[in-house]
Amino acid sequence: MNDASTDLPPARPVPPDDRPEVVRTIAELRARVAAWRAAGETIAMVPTMGALHAGHLSLVAEGRRRAARVVVSIFVNPTQFAPHEDFQTYPRTEAQDLALLSTLATDLVFAPAPSEIYPPGDATRIEIGGPAAGLETDFRPHFFAGVATVVAKLLIACTPDVAIFGEKDFQQLAVVRRLATDLALPVTIVGGETVREADGLALSSRNAYLSPAERAIAPRLHAALTTIAEVARTGGDVAAALAAARSDLLERGFHAVDYLVLRDAATLGPVDDATTERRLLAAVWLGRTRLIDNIAV
Amino acid sequence: MNDASTDLPPARPVPPDDRPEVVRTIAELRARVAAWRAAGETIAMVPTMGALHAGHLSLVAEGRRRAARVVVSIFVNPTQFAPHEDFQTYPRTEAQDLALLSTLATDLVFAPAPSEIYPPGDATRIEIGGPAAGLETDFRPHFFAGVATVVAKLLIACTPDVAIFGEKDFQQLAVVRRLATDLALPVTIVGGETVREADGLALSSRNAYLSPAERAIAPRLHAALTTIAEVARTGGDVAAALAAARSDLLERGFHAVDYLVLRDAATLGPVDDATTERRLLAAVWLGRTRLIDNIAV
Repeated sequence: MNDASTDLPPARPVPPDDRPEVVRTIAELRARVAAWRAAGETIAMVPTMGALHAGHLSLVAEGRRRAARVVVSIFVNPTQFAPHEDFQTYPRTEAQDLALLSTLATDLVFAPAPSEIYPPGDATRIEIGGPAAGLETDFRPHFFAGVATVVAKLLIACTPDVAIFGEKDFQQLAVVRRLATDLALPVTIVGGETVREADGLALSSRNAYLSPAERAIAPRLHAALTTIAEVARTGGDVAAALAAARSDLLERGFHAVDYLVLRDAATLGPVDDATTERRLLAAVWLGRTRLIDNIAV
Repeated sequence: MNDASTDLPPARPVPPDDRPEVVRTIAELRARVAAWRAAGETIAMVPTMGALHAGHLSLVAEGRRRAARVVVSIFVNPTQFAPHEDFQTYPRTEAQDLALLSTLATDLVFAPAPSEIYPPGDATRIEIGGPAAGLETDFRPHFFAGVATVVAKLLIACTPDVAIFGEKDFQQLAVVRRLATDLALPVTIVGGETVREADGLALSSRNAYLSPAERAIAPRLHAALTTIAEVARTGGDVAAALAAARSDLLERGFHAVDYLVLRDAATLGPVDDATTERRLLAAVWLGRTRLIDNIAV
């Protein structure tokens, strides 16, 4: 799901009465959606893990453009975190999230407890291959099963006409499109453009984990992607550019490069004769923080 | 899904105009369902693999009692068959099925091609634990992932208020209930009673595979379950009764007993202090035919 940042724009004070309605149960969510449907209104959903930043708000704005009503879900999904990952420490800032959402006239926030999404005795997991193979899966093998499971549950609960997912998590967007197609969910999946800091760093929850020194070198990731994309665009030696960028990142203080690759944007497989669009994708470590980013070529 | 028999009652001739409408695409199915919903009508779904018999018809009749409209799906689901199983030879008798369904005023038949349910590039499987553990899974390890995947797709495509599944496949019924709860599908799952031949044999597609000699001894399975249930009901030695029944079945010409067990009817786990209802479940081989059956205690 769309992840979070604590790198927040200052929230303007919002009187509690102006804040979006919050429901905690699927039954309440369905009742609100049914009333809108009965009135002939369309619905956009923006699934998030909360701790909202300007990247999320751009997805909400996209939802607003595409439907009469916008539902934002806030749910830190336990099943997409491995035991050693940051589920416990992931930022949870609901009051601030609601204040931010009120600035965009969000119609409804769905913020369920874990037991509403994973009921007692829960035994169902949605496994996905295709675009989920490789890349993130090589390093987070259970991630996309967790994502596919929770996204399916959220889309089944809300039944929006449109759901917006950030291109920042490009492989996730491809996985969600695959999931929606395979389950014939009656929804259009829309990708929202990545929002960046002035220095190019993609907004992310996990930027909040960076020390000042790490934050200073973090924008090199986007700079490296931009350089490689230019080489690819002009018919240069992409393999050499990828290798040079990898070395450069490690020299500048990145601790590891999980992947830094040029792929077919549609399949996320290797670029081949059938490729019409290419995408550069990277996952890197800066200290104890893992950052991902991607750009079109 | 509810399986099939070629042990059919004779179909009365039905003029083609009286036969239920058949749609082959999810889009057509949704259009019909949307029109009913707009008219305030409720919908029951009976998922089948076709080759309908009186057992299926009793499920359709149950659907008719519970909703204004009844949709029957006919789809021999490839993903619930292992490569060595009988997917290719499974009986396909659509014209006869439609004639039978017309006798029950079925509103719509959804009979998709495999590519409508598993679109090109399909990469999604729903894995399920809980009630799917053990019993059938010990002998058909991929069966319930295939069932859960196709049932989820069918219920998402049709969005019925009620879906009817036969108690003949008792573990499948428990798995479907678990699936519907875990995905919060807005449907009530209803179990339909097993229909039996006069001699006790549960109706099943696979009865058609039996030779006359095998058919003659097949009712011993139900007789054995009835005997053991009586022992259990009256506080007798169930373990001894199960062992005696197993020996008796093998002596009478059954070739193997995959399982013959008394379980908690709610969890399908072992009977324990929390058990309020018990169920006897069996899977046996008669020649090359595998038969399953179960009864309440």
